[in-house]
Amino acid sequence: MKEINVGLIGFGTIGTGVVHIFQQNADVMEQRLGARLNLKKIADLDVITDRGVTLDPSILTTDANEILHDPEIDMVIELVGGYEPARTFVMEAISQGKHIITANKALLALHGDEILAASEEKGVSVMFEAAVAGGIPVISPIKENLCANRFRTVLGILNGTCNYILTRMSQEGDDFADVLKDAQEAGFAEADPTFDIEGVDTAHKLAILTSLCFGTKVDFDSIYTEGISRLSSLDLQFARQFGYEIKLLAIGKIGYGKVEARVHPTMIPISHPLAEVHGVFNAVRLLGDFVGPVMLHGQGAGMEPTASAVMGDVMSVARDILHGSPLRTPAMGCSQKNFEDLPVRPMEELISQYYLRFGALDRPGVLAQISGILGNHDISISSMIQPDRQIGGTVSIVIMTHEAPEANIRAALAEIDELEVMREKSLFIRIENDLG
Amino acid sequence: MKEINVGLIGFGTIGTGVVHIFQQNADVMEQRLGARLNLKKIADLDVITDRGVTLDPSILTTDANEILHDPEIDMVIELVGGYEPARTFVMEAISQGKHIITANKALLALHGDEILAASEEKGVSVMFEAAVAGGIPVISPIKENLCANRFRTVLGILNGTCNYILTRMSQEGDDFADVLKDAQEAGFAEADPTFDIEGVDTAHKLAILTSLCFGTKVDFDSIYTEGISRLSSLDLQFARQFGYEIKLLAIGKIGYGKVEARVHPTMIPISHPLAEVHGVFNAVRLLGDFVGPVMLHGQGAGMEPTASAVMGDVMSVARDILHGSPLRTPAMGCSQKNFEDLPVRPMEELISQYYLRFGALDRPGVLAQISGILGNHDISISSMIQPDRQIGGTVSIVIMTHEAPEANIRAALAEIDELEVMREKSLFIRIENDLG
Repeated sequence: MKEINVGLIGFGTIGTGVVHIFQQNADVMEQRLGARLNLKKIADLDVITDRGVTLDPSILTTDANEILHDPEIDMVIELVGGYEPARTFVMEAISQGKHIITANKALLALHGDEILAASEEKGVSVMFEAAVAGGIPVISPIKENLCANRFRTVLGILNGTCNYILTRMSQEGDDFADVLKDAQEAGFAEADPTFDIEGVDTAHKLAILTSLCFGTKVDFDSIYTEGISRLSSLDLQFARQFGYEIKLLAIGKIGYGKVEARVHPTMIPISHPLAEVHGVFNAVRLLGDFVGPVMLHGQGAGMEPTASAVMGDVMSVARDILHGSPLRTPAMGCSQKNFEDLPVRPMEELISQYYLRFGALDRPGVLAQISGILGNHDISISSMIQPDRQIGGTVSIVIMTHEAPEANIRAALAEIDELEVMREKSLFIRIENDLG
Repeated sequence: MKEINVGLIGFGTIGTGVVHIFQQNADVMEQRLGARLNLKKIADLDVITDRGVTLDPSILTTDANEILHDPEIDMVIELVGGYEPARTFVMEAISQGKHIITANKALLALHGDEILAASEEKGVSVMFEAAVAGGIPVISPIKENLCANRFRTVLGILNGTCNYILTRMSQEGDDFADVLKDAQEAGFAEADPTFDIEGVDTAHKLAILTSLCFGTKVDFDSIYTEGISRLSSLDLQFARQFGYEIKLLAIGKIGYGKVEARVHPTMIPISHPLAEVHGVFNAVRLLGDFVGPVMLHGQGAGMEPTASAVMGDVMSVARDILHGSPLRTPAMGCSQKNFEDLPVRPMEELISQYYLRFGALDRPGVLAQISGILGNHDISISSMIQPDRQIGGTVSIVIMTHEAPEANIRAALAEIDELEVMREKSLFIRIENDLG
């Protein structure tokens, strides 16, 4: 029986999950592949820590070069994470003719161009199903099953930490800071949660999804990114009163020669399937011109689901090795050479409905001032609530608008924030009613 | 640019959708494939009917042999449906070295063995993503992304007609017969709906899914199949009172050396994601040992979604042709040679909770008689309702049981049905609380 040799660089949580699959599911993988996968070498700077798996110590090394320069190793799983030395390892492995499997969305979002160009030139595969939505099949369905569709929209709940926080804020009325602390103590929010809660992780994933769906390069830097740290649990309660749930949504759309790519807290109708994605679960909703809406739902992070995605890619690369068909499906769904270069629509051009929250002194005439400024900016109000609730003399005013250009909203809010009666910076949340 | 020639046999609804994709999305398919797909010939016995598409008349024929024996045609899309002549066409195409794409679940459920054995011997691909859950990527995720998992459970809502009927019965309280008539008039239930409403179509699909997930041959004949025609809208109302929704569920499980494969109306907790699959939508829920639960949701039927799945397979086969890698991924996820041959667990061995509904004369002592017989068969009752509702002197008695062997339930109900006071055959619905 043919044997395919795999090297693993980075033996942290996901790496441990990968080793578990090699150990526990060798038989089913062999049955399906008709060949044997051999985990030949694991490199990690820290090889001493006990990962709770029994391994032949001779396959452990602290030197990634033992993998990168082993001519018997066919493919390299990169689970180092971050930009460097991950980038150097990946580029070196490609130059050595090795296929790459990675879960590193940051690396792909920022250095994808360079990596994919090198891989196409060298004729090796780069696979990264685990980089978006953990165990949920997302990248491969876009590249394979749904590839006869012109995609119109891709929406994602892609960060489990944010979704857990928002779910607790919505369902229990808990405060952002409290839930974040709980999540950190439970170990599924990072000690420094900035990348998660400020939307950066979600934007990394959206850069990949929009490039895949629309066949155009979407730079990470061009994605508007806004996190959830300014939301109050009151916003989630108000949203429910209006029939909405608030999610940190990754939104990709295409139309009129431009791509929309944005990450921000979004109010979506409470009855929409994406509103029912709770806790640490992730989901991706695709709208294709023929398939219509498709939703893919599951565990978007965690050792075992992410390892499942990594090993699905390992199996795919193994099949390509066995059949001599690397690059059979290009990494981004089409060859880099066939990529388009569409611009990303600036946020100022966005037209949306908005939820606005103001904190003002509880004085007569405040509402007239606010609505006057909104009217001056051609923003019309669809409904308003002024909850019977004061904190230190400050009262919340919540306004839902009809459709308005984002540029007008920003200008109006800047003006309102200058009013003498305002006690806190106003907050706005975009509303998406037409999700498909 | 390389050109790949495709022949289409069967120019009905789905075939028309396929032609639409060839016409409307040639550019994106070419961008992604790096080659051109050419629909060279369409065969249908009836070529006169106007399908609302403009085609060069010279590509139309009434003779399938013009496709089967055209050496320039690389792959054949079979959309004839049914057993014959579809089987003959497919076998002949394989013997001519042509790859097969089909949406024909009946053919695969009954003649899959023969077809796949021939295709492996000839070295051609057989693809059938469209056969299960229409446009939703299901078969490929099982074979590709999730293939490092040991699957534990596969659950499906796989028949849009049934799900539409059950949704209306549950949400509007409409009667089965009325909703069926509406669905027929709206054109999405067949004139003869037997295959749909009696669960046969769902069982065809489950035969494919269980074989795929568990790597073992599951004969269609061994699948217990029960449809929805005996359900009353009262059952759906009672179910909701107990916190359940009723769905026609395809259930595949594996354990203790046996496969479970069954299709029947099933009560599932109202908060479970599968309970939220409404109307004509389909969903498949997979439970893998590493990935955990994954749910795939979308349009399970209809011209355009099904054509999307067909064309996804066409793209995949085209990639295999371009890279010389047919059989890269075996049709059933592993080679027929590596298939196991596990037995299907007989229904009598099933242990479940049950919903029981009896129609009896409204007389004192009836409940004592029923509960006595249940007790004699070791069936314990968890709750009971006797709605205040009489139809012609007949009263409904609804009982929820604790876990009991199906053999006991059947024996008890047979005995109860003999009671003089009973006015209609008793009905039972299996309850699944542990869906993953």
